[in-house]
Amino acid sequence: MTRTKTMLQYFLAHRNVTQELIKKIAEDNYDYKPTPTSMSAQELSSHIVTSFFNLAATAKRGDTSAFAENREDSPNILTLAEQYTENTKDLLATFSDEEFDRVVDLTNLFGMKLSGRQLLQLAMDHEIHHKGALFVYVRALGHTELPMFIQRV
Amino acid sequence: MTRTKTMLQYFLAHRNVTQELIKKIAEDNYDYKPTPTSMSAQELSSHIVTSFFNLAATAKRGDTSAFAENREDSPNILTLAEQYTENTKDLLATFSDEEFDRVVDLTNLFGMKLSGRQLLQLAMDHEIHHKGALFVYVRALGHTELPMFIQRV
Repeated sequence: MTRTKTMLQYFLAHRNVTQELIKKIAEDNYDYKPTPTSMSAQELSSHIVTSFFNLAATAKRGDTSAFAENREDSPNILTLAEQYTENTKDLLATFSDEEFDRVVDLTNLFGMKLSGRQLLQLAMDHEIHHKGALFVYVRALGHTELPMFIQRV
Repeated sequence: MTRTKTMLQYFLAHRNVTQELIKKIAEDNYDYKPTPTSMSAQELSSHIVTSFFNLAATAKRGDTSAFAENREDSPNILTLAEQYTENTKDLLATFSDEEFDRVVDLTNLFGMKLSGRQLLQLAMDHEIHHKGALFVYVRALGHTELPMFIQRV
């Protein structure tokens, strides 16, 4: 399998689960937060899908300009997640070996330099981390039939 | 950097954060769970550190015997985490290229076959997932000064 296909499959193995969780969050519960200092369910869902796109776009472009752009937020988090998933899939499908290996200077943003591959792993880790929190949100909203944390694709 | 060193560094970048969170859980709060169907703080902490060891031992041995062994549970979760972190570091340090590449038959356990490298990535994803939930627990227990989800090592 090519590196691009492997990455796409890995992305969807987790993103499909993120979307399953987001599907369970009714609009009435968008403002729910498990603790006073937590992000709301809506903020967390939006943060997960926009952050992955920004990190992948950073790896693709070789610069941090993506983080300076405003991301349009659909008021519906499932619509937003579906849009960003499509955009992120399209973006990942274009990665060349050179882009996986190119080192991007992220000194201003994260205080380090990372290769495209390392940036995409950071994007995965970030999604898995926040999705782990989202499981607690969805469980607290009364759902007990929950997917595995990773899905075979 | 060798694959072994890269893996060790990646492991500690997350495990150090897991341990920081576990340090914040007082014995009085071991039974805390954020929802009725969640694992308790003690169960979750123990699950994170023993599961990583089992998955890494599976990759190292090339069979699933590790999952059939009883893991001794120290009643103190910080002591348990420290012990398992040391054992896991020692184990990861011994991995050869052959062991990273060897395919292990996990059909009985997870319905698939995975290489040592893929098994270790699954162990990382599993830890990051549950650590993401643990952040919610620790925040709910009143802590607001929390580490980043990944630490530079």
